[in-house]
Formats: sequence, C-alpha cells, structure tokens
Amino acid sequence: MLSKIHHIGVVVRDLEQAYGFWRDVLGLPVQVVKTVRDQDVTAALLKVGASEIELLQPLSDRSGIGKFLAKRGEGLHHLCFETDDVAAELAAAKAKGIRVIDDKPRLGLAGMICFLHPTATRGVLIEYAQPIEEHH
Amino acid sequence: MLSKIHHIGVVVRDLEQAYGFWRDVLGLPVQVVKTVRDQDVTAALLKVGASEIELLQPLSDRSGIGKFLAKRGEGLHHLCFETDDVAAELAAAKAKGIRVIDDKPRLGLAGMICFLHPTATRGVLIEYAQPIEEHH
Repeated sequence: MLSKIHHIGVVVRDLEQAYGFWRDVLGLPVQVVKTVRDQDVTAALLKVGASEIELLQPLSDRSGIGKFLAKRGEGLHHLCFETDDVAAELAAAKAKGIRVIDDKPRLGLAGMICFLHPTATRGVLIEYAQPIEEHH
Repeated sequence: MLSKIHHIGVVVRDLEQAYGFWRDVLGLPVQVVKTVRDQDVTAALLKVGASEIELLQPLSDRSGIGKFLAKRGEGLHHLCFETDDVAAELAAAKAKGIRVIDDKPRLGLAGMICFLHPTATRGVLIEYAQPIEEHH
C-alpha cells in the first residue's frame, strides 16, 4: 500500500538560485543536501508537511538529470510514494504488466527505492520508497 | 505558511484509461470527479495519505490543459500547497516580486486558490489552496 507522497523531484539548474524561490519565497526549510556521485547529481531535500521537495541539480550533461534539464528545462521530474514494503509493491506492479526501470529495490536517497518506467505510467516517472529506520 | 502538499496535478488524455494505472495499479481511491465547464476540464481526485493526485482530462484542445496535452503529452502539470491564508500567501509572493497568474484568490476545485506564474517559479506551475470548511 502507498501511504503518502514521500517527495516530488524537481530538476533545477543551480541549487543556490533555486533556494531563492523554494526556500526564500515558499519558505520551505532545507533539511539535507547530498551529492550522489554515481548519478552525477546533488539533491537538496526541503520539508513541507509530511512530504519533501527534492531539488535535483545535475553535475554533468550526461547524467539522466542533465539530459532532462537540457531537453525540458527546469521543472517537475518525478513523484515518489512511500510504502512500508517496496519489494512487494514492485512485485505487484510487475505482476500487473507494468514496465519498470529497477528490476529490484536498490539503495537511494529516500531509502530502498525503485522506479517504474514512464512509458508504463502515463508519462509520469514514479518512484516507490521504503525509508530506512535510523537507529540512534 | 505552506502546511503540506495539497495535491499534484497530472494531465491525462482520458480519465477511464488513467484509472487503469492510478487507481488499479497504484491502488489510490477515486474520491471525487468534477467537470469545470469554464476551464473545459474534468478532474478526478485520488487520495494518498494527506494529499491528493488530481487527474485532469481536457474537454477541448483550446483549454489550457488541452494545449498542455497537445504540446507535452500526459504528465506532471502543477504542484499545489495548502495554506490557511491564501490571500496572505499570495500577497507575500507578490511583495517578493513573484509574477502571478491570479491577482487575487478565486474559487477553484480545492477551495480558494491562486496560481503563481511558472516563469517566476523555476519552471514549476505552483498553486496555493485554502480549503473551504464544509459545514454539515
């Protein structure tokens, strides 16, 4: 079961410029900033209610996010739903004939994640995420 | 203050086909379906956690949603944040130099609403909504 919108991914050209709108105009606090080298992207997570806005700045033109920016410009990129069992959700989607990007869950920024394929999801790139419990 | 993601607007070609993914694969229940004649659109609201997915099917090619569909195809369209004072949020955005589509709040599907202009918001069409209390 999908319990909530975990985050919305938004492609931006430059995080510092993007903060001028998302943080300073909308008033959303920046919680975490992380660079994911193997995807050539820096991501900033801003909190709103029980969800997040994930601003994605590409670090190269060749990355997936860099190609999106070159082709479509800044804008909405993907929609991530939270689940407490990402493997079961992925299996259920595949059983319904949905094409997927990730054949099994992998570690991502939001925990254990997978992406469905936008050709199977009416033009929207959809991610499922199962957050990892942090033990203190 | 923006308290949560109220909904994500998604343009679809045909609601019945879209239900095959959004309702039947993702499992999100359809709560309300409404036709807004002056915007030439039928909208279906599907619940996920404290937020909604708003599927938007254009009823003509000339409507804003119809033009979006013709130009970009099905996909993510806008992002709506909830506030308890839409007039104050709109005034605050304007005071910060943000270009807007609606100069003052108007009645929309989600209550009293307004849209900021995507040229001012880094490519993302942003809506503010103040739900109207329903008295029973």
